[in-house]
Amino acid sequence: MEIITAKTAGFCFGVKRAIDIAFRMAAEKRKGVYTLGPIIHNPQVVEKLKRKGIVPLEDLKSKKDIQAVIIRTHGIPLRLSKEIASSGCEIIDATCPFVKKAQYYAKLLSEEGYQVVILGEKNHPEVQSLMSYADNDAIVVNAETPLPRLKKKIGLVVQTTQPLESLRKVLSGVLIHAKELKVYNTICNSTALRLRETERMARQVDVMFVAGGKNSANTTQLTRLCGSLSVPTYHIETASEIRKQWITNAKHIGITAGASTPDWIIHEVEERIRYIGGRQVGGNSKQ
Amino acid sequence: MEIITAKTAGFCFGVKRAIDIAFRMAAEKRKGVYTLGPIIHNPQVVEKLKRKGIVPLEDLKSKKDIQAVIIRTHGIPLRLSKEIASSGCEIIDATCPFVKKAQYYAKLLSEEGYQVVILGEKNHPEVQSLMSYADNDAIVVNAETPLPRLKKKIGLVVQTTQPLESLRKVLSGVLIHAKELKVYNTICNSTALRLRETERMARQVDVMFVAGGKNSANTTQLTRLCGSLSVPTYHIETASEIRKQWITNAKHIGITAGASTPDWIIHEVEERIRYIGGRQVGGNSKQ
Repeated sequence: MEIITAKTAGFCFGVKRAIDIAFRMAAEKRKGVYTLGPIIHNPQVVEKLKRKGIVPLEDLKSKKDIQAVIIRTHGIPLRLSKEIASSGCEIIDATCPFVKKAQYYAKLLSEEGYQVVILGEKNHPEVQSLMSYADNDAIVVNAETPLPRLKKKIGLVVQTTQPLESLRKVLSGVLIHAKELKVYNTICNSTALRLRETERMARQVDVMFVAGGKNSANTTQLTRLCGSLSVPTYHIETASEIRKQWITNAKHIGITAGASTPDWIIHEVEERIRYIGGRQVGGNSKQ
Repeated sequence: MEIITAKTAGFCFGVKRAIDIAFRMAAEKRKGVYTLGPIIHNPQVVEKLKRKGIVPLEDLKSKKDIQAVIIRTHGIPLRLSKEIASSGCEIIDATCPFVKKAQYYAKLLSEEGYQVVILGEKNHPEVQSLMSYADNDAIVVNAETPLPRLKKKIGLVVQTTQPLESLRKVLSGVLIHAKELKVYNTICNSTALRLRETERMARQVDVMFVAGGKNSANTTQLTRLCGSLSVPTYHIETASEIRKQWITNAKHIGITAGASTPDWIIHEVEERIRYIGGRQVGGNSKQ
């Protein structure tokens, strides 16, 4: 049995940065520092931070002693930034720098008179934040559903975790409407690389494990990708979920993980598979 | 036998306008008025104009009595415009208004700091003219050959007669390079409509006739399109080229024509097929 772990599995640059900021705040033991919502879509990390005193807020009114809020990687709507600022509360901005760029472009396109189109998942917090920067006037589209009727001057900005193929598909459709089209390809390369490595891996193994929060969009996307390649795929949050029958007869086992999955969870998944399989780990394992 | 002539066959708006300008000049009987090159890619029209005194120039030095030059639909390089103007010669500008728009956008993209990419045929006069407006710094690409290495900030403008499918294909490739992409879809709708009607027609008939100059790019494109759909296709300049064996056993015959093919040539093609076939014309004939 060979276990191969994707080199691109786990924390991306933006998540690593946000987690670092949150743990630094925890180390400083400042009172009244909260994250606005869970810092990342990973319950285990959120739990660890809680134990160190950094608790996620449901909203700004849910606690009375709020001194500072850490903004998570996805960013927040402009209106909420203003609300926090005017309440006298400090903003510790852990918005991913790539998301900040996308926010800036959404604003720019809107100011330049383009009909702003956002390729992404409508209810994702990043997209909600992007919309606010486009004066809440943007149209959110995805690659699966038909495009609505659009204007002739279109500005396109992309949720950083979208696959390039979706951008291609949407652009192809947008061309029916647009005479002038400005595109900021704000897709984060780390997502593309992770998707590419995962796809390559899924084509070579007998079973795929995707580790990460069930509510993490980019982890779910990895699971969907593997599933579409007809390899048995298991989306797990922790190693304890793995069942022996899943790997019976599997010679090659692939592990990948979303951008919000910490290394220690990936490591536990490897260990658990190795333990169940009762043999040695092989391949280009990450750890 | 049924003969169907495409509704979109023949002169487009820009060509009609240019021909009108040339014949108006002929009617005015002004001395020393020339066209710079053949006014359109149709030898029969050029011949007709010649007989009325409007002769095509090879270059500005080929005649001594040049008072005014008519610029044809494709436009001319900026440098040449300046040369003509500084020689004291009048410019009668019959550049297609849609090409003028593309020229303007090529200039704008260049000024805005984009690496200008022109989708089109490198040696086509329209593309040569577009290049000059992009400060001669533009890269010409097409949908058939791989893209060269491009910069991250790309401005795309399109030869007006390109098919939308080529733009889709090139855009898809450009996305690998570009982080910022501005596209002016300068494809002329009349070309798209003509291509679409021709394709639909070619799928329904037994033989296709494409009437137009052998040196007309858009006529050649129609021929190539029909050929790719495996219907026997004949590119003819005049009705006299049609051979009886081409239509033997053909029940449905389609006729289309490029943007530079005059109505009287299309009409002659219809008449000749009807004569050879020895039967009545049917379908939604144009004339």
